[in-house]
Amino acid sequence: MGARHALHFLNRTPRAELVAAFTPEPSEVAWAKIHLEPSGVTIYTDYDEMLRHPGLEAVVVATVTTVHAEQAIKAIQANKHVLCEKPLSTSVEVSQSVVDASKTKPHLKVMCGFSRRFDASYRDAFDRMDSGAIGRPSVFRSQTCDKLDPSGFFVEYAQFSGGIFVDCNIHDIDLALWYFGQDSIVKSVVAMGITAVQPELRKYKDVDNGVGIVEFWGGKLAYFYSSRMMAAGQHDMTEIIGTEGKLSINANPIGTLVEMSEPSGIRREIPPHYYGRFEQAFVTEANEFTAACLDDLKLPFKLTGAVQAVKIGCALQESLNSGKEIYFDETGRRLEKAAL
Amino acid sequence: MGARHALHFLNRTPRAELVAAFTPEPSEVAWAKIHLEPSGVTIYTDYDEMLRHPGLEAVVVATVTTVHAEQAIKAIQANKHVLCEKPLSTSVEVSQSVVDASKTKPHLKVMCGFSRRFDASYRDAFDRMDSGAIGRPSVFRSQTCDKLDPSGFFVEYAQFSGGIFVDCNIHDIDLALWYFGQDSIVKSVVAMGITAVQPELRKYKDVDNGVGIVEFWGGKLAYFYSSRMMAAGQHDMTEIIGTEGKLSINANPIGTLVEMSEPSGIRREIPPHYYGRFEQAFVTEANEFTAACLDDLKLPFKLTGAVQAVKIGCALQESLNSGKEIYFDETGRRLEKAAL
Amino acid sequence: MGARHALHFLNRTPRAELVAAFTPEPSEVAWAKIHLEPSGVTIYTDYDEMLRHPGLEAVVVATVTTVHAEQAIKAIQANKHVLCEKPLSTSVEVSQSVVDASKTKPHLKVMCGFSRRFDASYRDAFDRMDSGAIGRPSVFRSQTCDKLDPSGFFVEYAQFSGGIFVDCNIHDIDLALWYFGQDSIVKSVVAMGITAVQPELRKYKDVDNGVGIVEFWGGKLAYFYSSRMMAAGQHDMTEIIGTEGKLSINANPIGTLVEMSEPSGIRREIPPHYYGRFEQAFVTEANEFTAACLDDLKLPFKLTGAVQAVKIGCALQESLNSGKEIYFDETGRRLEKAAL
Amino acid sequence: MGARHALHFLNRTPRAELVAAFTPEPSEVAWAKIHLEPSGVTIYTDYDEMLRHPGLEAVVVATVTTVHAEQAIKAIQANKHVLCEKPLSTSVEVSQSVVDASKTKPHLKVMCGFSRRFDASYRDAFDRMDSGAIGRPSVFRSQTCDKLDPSGFFVEYAQFSGGIFVDCNIHDIDLALWYFGQDSIVKSVVAMGITAVQPELRKYKDVDNGVGIVEFWGGKLAYFYSSRMMAAGQHDMTEIIGTEGKLSINANPIGTLVEMSEPSGIRREIPPHYYGRFEQAFVTEANEFTAACLDDLKLPFKLTGAVQAVKIGCALQESLNSGKEIYFDETGRRLEKAAL
Repeated sequence: MGARHALHFLNRTPRAELVAAFTPEPSEVAWAKIHLEPSGVTIYTDYDEMLRHPGLEAVVVATVTTVHAEQAIKAIQANKHVLCEKPLSTSVEVSQSVVDASKTKPHLKVMCGFSRRFDASYRDAFDRMDSGAIGRPSVFRSQTCDKLDPSGFFVEYAQFSGGIFVDCNIHDIDLALWYFGQDSIVKSVVAMGITAVQPELRKYKDVDNGVGIVEFWGGKLAYFYSSRMMAAGQHDMTEIIGTEGKLSINANPIGTLVEMSEPSGIRREIPPHYYGRFEQAFVTEANEFTAACLDDLKLPFKLTGAVQAVKIGCALQESLNSGKEIYFDETGRRLEKAAL
Repeated sequence: MGARHALHFLNRTPRAELVAAFTPEPSEVAWAKIHLEPSGVTIYTDYDEMLRHPGLEAVVVATVTTVHAEQAIKAIQANKHVLCEKPLSTSVEVSQSVVDASKTKPHLKVMCGFSRRFDASYRDAFDRMDSGAIGRPSVFRSQTCDKLDPSGFFVEYAQFSGGIFVDCNIHDIDLALWYFGQDSIVKSVVAMGITAVQPELRKYKDVDNGVGIVEFWGGKLAYFYSSRMMAAGQHDMTEIIGTEGKLSINANPIGTLVEMSEPSGIRREIPPHYYGRFEQAFVTEANEFTAACLDDLKLPFKLTGAVQAVKIGCALQESLNSGKEIYFDETGRRLEKAAL
Repeated sequence: MGARHALHFLNRTPRAELVAAFTPEPSEVAWAKIHLEPSGVTIYTDYDEMLRHPGLEAVVVATVTTVHAEQAIKAIQANKHVLCEKPLSTSVEVSQSVVDASKTKPHLKVMCGFSRRFDASYRDAFDRMDSGAIGRPSVFRSQTCDKLDPSGFFVEYAQFSGGIFVDCNIHDIDLALWYFGQDSIVKSVVAMGITAVQPELRKYKDVDNGVGIVEFWGGKLAYFYSSRMMAAGQHDMTEIIGTEGKLSINANPIGTLVEMSEPSGIRREIPPHYYGRFEQAFVTEANEFTAACLDDLKLPFKLTGAVQAVKIGCALQESLNSGKEIYFDETGRRLEKAAL
Repeated sequence: MGARHALHFLNRTPRAELVAAFTPEPSEVAWAKIHLEPSGVTIYTDYDEMLRHPGLEAVVVATVTTVHAEQAIKAIQANKHVLCEKPLSTSVEVSQSVVDASKTKPHLKVMCGFSRRFDASYRDAFDRMDSGAIGRPSVFRSQTCDKLDPSGFFVEYAQFSGGIFVDCNIHDIDLALWYFGQDSIVKSVVAMGITAVQPELRKYKDVDNGVGIVEFWGGKLAYFYSSRMMAAGQHDMTEIIGTEGKLSINANPIGTLVEMSEPSGIRREIPPHYYGRFEQAFVTEANEFTAACLDDLKLPFKLTGAVQAVKIGCALQESLNSGKEIYFDETGRRLEKAAL
């Protein structure tokens, strides 16, 4: 994803200039020497050194999740605008520390890269909902379903990912907070899951198929599905169900607009990965973040939401493993069961 | 189709009683002895004898096209109601003779079996159009596309079928007359075609893919496609384009409501033959024809339209072979080119 | 639904003869006198009297849920085959009493009317799954979503319905048992819900939107959604997700095959009620039940499953109200939380 | 379209530098002063002067059709690469003169802007066809259907557009030549049309709905529909039907991936104009044209095809007005009817 961000800022963000790139990985350095260096980009293998690159104004953090927060905070301290990939951290406290750092530098733009917020379809749906088209939004369903990767990648990845609800459904949770309102307060959380294709995930307390339900104070219900075993490709979809109508986003995934009629029926192919679905959203993100930095515009959403999303994701992951529903009071503070 | 009609009247038309069946084919007689005789149906191998079956009130003619008209006329003369499969004949004159015969017995119900007229989707579209939903209907597109049958069946069949425009597109032409108005007058006709999979069709002056255009007086345009080489199954579809909207019928064919997500993509299967698409329409046809006979109700459409449909189908077929556009005056009488 | 069953057996089930009908409701008696009596059907207002109708061989119980079990048991005792509408009862024990009664008369066919079992699309999906098309079925998603009825009907109905999970999702639960295997053992159950449009439902401990998750022993996960506030019409849909593929049923609901292109976009209408979706399934049910009675065939599914479905539905409803997850051991016996 | 091309080259074509823009229109000059001049683009109102802009290497001609050829030829003579909007001209001879000019400067890249050639879906379909997925491509159906514009714009536009077959279907004809092979030779051409919403079009010998059929030597058939009265938006679609399968492109047009469930049914909106459908294709075109110029790469298709497309479009328009089918011999030379 770092490489993709770099290319988006280099080639598809007219108002941005890509001046530096950092990676500790030799193979990535090699890639950058071919694809970035000829365009005048300086390649760094030391993050702190990169932060001292002359004239650097903004940093995109797209490293492994475990160092997101540390690198984001360093950039803030160095007075750079920051676009940090999601999640800020797999820990609520660490995520909060990024928010705290950003508050010390209110002139900086610090944004968590929830790419779906920049997707034309999600925005279209939001605008329709916001204009009252479906009455009061009440039920939210959203799924992040990855194509089956039989290589075992997801097992290794699970050590650091925070678990399927924090890694995959973090997007869906963020969307629920967007559509239900950024200040929605979680009331209770429960989750279940199975390991259908990768039983080794259990050693990292993770699953390959998970379902979670989240109730919010005020009579709003969200439910989420995440999976690592889709056959046809990536299928992320969302429904917002209101008292007077429903909006669905990507219920019928497509690749190109081609449909094949064959002896075995009528068929279409769909993108294998999230980038096939969200490429344009990433480009929009790059352009809007750039505009916010250059023109001192308000970011499209608040950084604090990213902490809420991690909090809910972590609660779902905990419920998955404890087999217990988790409750929160009307201020969002966790309740012990006994307190009920 | 005869067997299907028999079963519809036997089992799925509560107000009708199937009392007799005729076929000259020994294999069909054998089938009827198993499926019809035990329910009290008398099997005949002589059509005239069947017409003398005691108490017989109505006859369904579903034999080969070449004897449709003769058998329909005999039934009319014997004072029976008649439901005759389409087309009445591949000849305009012979088709007209059925109409003439029916006029001598105005108390009889004589109907040409244009099954799509009884299809719920076509009726739904007609009602919407009729209520003004698309403004003034102006362009009509319709196709009848059969699944590829590599057995060579269609070549032998072409000797008697009247050609692809008379055999396949007769349905689409009838639909155009329904939607544009039964009294629409044809103005000009042109057609082209190719033999992509069955070159032997040329010996019977037929093609396996044909496209025709028909203009009607009053500024209405229809175009038709017929094919014998669909890979996925039968795909009959229709569009009615009006000055304020469009109605499409079966643009996306389906079999069941099941969709399969597989490594090769997302797939659905469709019916291989017309019966998979129109089964319920045939049952409705049987029930409505029965009700019309028993209660002396007006038939849903006039027999004369069947002659118009054959006239247009034959003109398309002629144009296909002559390479010439054919013209008609405002009364529908054919013009010679020189007359232009 | 009683009237519909009566007409299906009268007109669309060739091997059955409808001889009697019972209802205590004067308005329904009036309807029956018009629609059934002229065809020779005797109308009863006393159920016991109807059971003594000469020659009666089978009974369809389609009264209110509260008397399903009692009437079914009486019919069994009177030596009649029974097709009983779902659910047998809103109580597990009462449901079980019907099973017990049926065991005393093993020669009788006693079936619970899970109509979706007779639906061509569900059967198609089952056959595909059963043939291995999607690998090992692992996750099951199913919803029963009714069109919004602002009349308040559902509030009154909730007094007797057993709640949304017992009334609506009973179908989905039965489907999960069908696809996962009739002998699947429930492991844990949890549910949440809201009242978005009908807050009065709370007085009957019910909701208008509910989400439940059910884990089965053996690593299988099902989740269900039910709603009483769909704007466009009835939308019941199901997904079966396997280790190698996914089957979806009715993901894109349709009414007729007509699509409208209008200034506001492209639109299709969908059936307002379940009968628009499942009419043909009910007819198939009538015919197959009749054949099973007449030819002493095995019924397509066991009556005991109907008790399992009620058990899971009731547990979901209880979890909705208690806010607690409910657990079962590997024999399906309920565990108290303390036992964990 | 000129403004769009300018922005594509300015902002979305990293390897191109937009240095100059020309327009004789004061309102367009005003626009350019706001959107282009601040980025260092020089605005010209004299085309010849612009051609002398220092360092200018390539020109995009996107003026009115009537001056396409003249400006393209001037640019060629001035030794500039040329991307000329379609059609080169509404006259075959004038179109050919651009080809002739380009032949005098074989080092220049001269391309006609058939944007659909750069569309990912059309390319996907072509690659599938080219790999044999549908057997031998035999029938080609394609339509270009504009949203109804009640302002009368299309009437005035018809004076210069060359007619609906030259203006709209030129794209479809070019696609037919792409899919059937650039060297396909036209055999016969026929067209009909009506004026359903804009009868004034007749004074310019044009229609608002046209259907044409084109047969190619070698047993290939194409048919085209164009319309100016779509209610829902732009709907351009294409089918390629082969002996073993069919590919369809954009059979179901979409805007965003949002679907709305409302009391009136399920609805989606579609783009009102071609740019909503083909924006990305235009950007790809800009980038590939730039790469071809800078790296001396072969253009993706030959300029001569643009003349063939105009030739067929003009023949369709002539047939529409003469009511006569037009024939060509195996070298593509026009035959007089008498010669048949």
